[in-house]
Amino acid sequence: MIYEVKKLYEDREDVTLTSYVHSDSSELLNGEKRGAVLICPGGAYVNCSDREAEPVAFRFASMGYHAFVLRYSTYMNGEKGFPEMGMELSINEKSLYPNPMRDIGKAMLYIRERAEEWFIDTEKIAICGFSAGAHNCAMYSVYWNDPVLTEYFDVTPVQLKPAATILGYMLSDFTLQNSWVQQSDDPGTKHIADVANIAYTGTIDPDQELLHKISPARHVSDVTPPTFLWTTTEDALVPVEHTIRMAGALAQNNIPFEMHVFEEGQHGLSLANQATASNRELLNLDAAKWIDLCEQWLLKRFQLDLPEK
Amino acid sequence: MIYEVKKLYEDREDVTLTSYVHSDSSELLNGEKRGAVLICPGGAYVNCSDREAEPVAFRFASMGYHAFVLRYSTYMNGEKGFPEMGMELSINEKSLYPNPMRDIGKAMLYIRERAEEWFIDTEKIAICGFSAGAHNCAMYSVYWNDPVLTEYFDVTPVQLKPAATILGYMLSDFTLQNSWVQQSDDPGTKHIADVANIAYTGTIDPDQELLHKISPARHVSDVTPPTFLWTTTEDALVPVEHTIRMAGALAQNNIPFEMHVFEEGQHGLSLANQATASNRELLNLDAAKWIDLCEQWLLKRFQLDLPEK
Repeated sequence: MIYEVKKLYEDREDVTLTSYVHSDSSELLNGEKRGAVLICPGGAYVNCSDREAEPVAFRFASMGYHAFVLRYSTYMNGEKGFPEMGMELSINEKSLYPNPMRDIGKAMLYIRERAEEWFIDTEKIAICGFSAGAHNCAMYSVYWNDPVLTEYFDVTPVQLKPAATILGYMLSDFTLQNSWVQQSDDPGTKHIADVANIAYTGTIDPDQELLHKISPARHVSDVTPPTFLWTTTEDALVPVEHTIRMAGALAQNNIPFEMHVFEEGQHGLSLANQATASNRELLNLDAAKWIDLCEQWLLKRFQLDLPEK
Repeated sequence: MIYEVKKLYEDREDVTLTSYVHSDSSELLNGEKRGAVLICPGGAYVNCSDREAEPVAFRFASMGYHAFVLRYSTYMNGEKGFPEMGMELSINEKSLYPNPMRDIGKAMLYIRERAEEWFIDTEKIAICGFSAGAHNCAMYSVYWNDPVLTEYFDVTPVQLKPAATILGYMLSDFTLQNSWVQQSDDPGTKHIADVANIAYTGTIDPDQELLHKISPARHVSDVTPPTFLWTTTEDALVPVEHTIRMAGALAQNNIPFEMHVFEEGQHGLSLANQATASNRELLNLDAAKWIDLCEQWLLKRFQLDLPEK
């Protein structure tokens, strides 16, 4: 395998792309190309969770895809931890919209740069996110051909195009989220939302125009890629309505999608198995099926053109 | 992750242990240990197949185990390829019994040496092999506490003990295999068997005593670890009887085991998916279920003791 941790900006330690690239072998594809999956961990735009990073890359790699983990710009500048309640929150310019989404673009361009050398089929690059990482991927899904990315990088849209999007317990609409948080009587939920708002918008109370702009469910169009969505109804941090709303927007725009809503399971399950759980509540045999369902779904799009014998 | 290719003998390039070790993280196990799986690819003791190596490691890693690929001593000294039919075959002392089995022992001792640093639970190390690699693992399963290993390494048996064994389309009995090959009218099958015999025994016609010694199904005892076996009835190179015979020996010795025999699929399926297939005959959605079944089976033994919350 080619295992590499690449700094996407030479002068920054925090934004990295970790590659898990299949070695070419005469016994395997012998120079033929594979699809790839770019993974964005969650973490409320405050950090990038290890729980939604490498183990997920192992699983996609085991399906036969090259896998990449993107640690995008976050409020903590790549450090672990979360600001404590009551702490005064300054603005971090780096984690503000549209920077985390642009990091996906930067990663896409880098992957395409290495595509020949690493035997990557650039028409089969999926993006997969969890929680805030799913929001980031959904934003990228609706804005990949927008000047906010194409003009910024001075590239043609096709260089940034994702072939498929995979969204786990996503946040699709900031207005919906802010109403949910206002109704919640859990100070922890309110605190996470406040910090996420500061991290991504620079204010705990973003105006309607900005809220609209950063709500991907409101911008689905015919250029949005085929999408796989999954979540649980018990998610108390990012309610299931986000996933349903995204699915509705995809349906309205005739975008192929698949959605799996499991009844049980809390926010942040990741693979919901021993590779990603830090406690028993993060193990869930039912919800863990999402990755197998996703494997089948992805196979329809990323099937290798193998010889008969 | 800790990705390392370790030469197990300083003066040899051919025997290597590749590690795919989960990084510790405060968000994951925070210093707690995980089980591990040591993978032995197949290749008739002539080479080690890439198809049964890294992709399998990715899959076990995605279950939450540390994974290792052992490239043990083979006739081709770690090179690809297979001697052509009609070629004169000299003896390679390195690939002869018991050397490939001792390589597993060497790997076990190395893994235990790094166990504290890599957070490996040394009571949960499984071995997993395919074809000749499964024969090698089965040999190790029945001989791990034998002087051929303990005296050779000058260690106590517990340092070499495997916790579980996973065997894919195994060869369990050399006498059975030689009869099968004699009945076969396929010169290719005869050629592979001849080369494998030369590679592992130094002769195309090993005597009965040696055949007995290198047939693990004849040496199952109460120290043989719990075993997971799988194969297909269509395997034309190593017939299903090998797996059935091994299962019978496990049953007779009251060793817990699980066996899955799929109706369709040729020899050498590995994961039977896009990660390991080089042609469409090596894709098999039914047989591909073995790894999910194996995940459940292994979970019963290698379950993490996670906190409630």
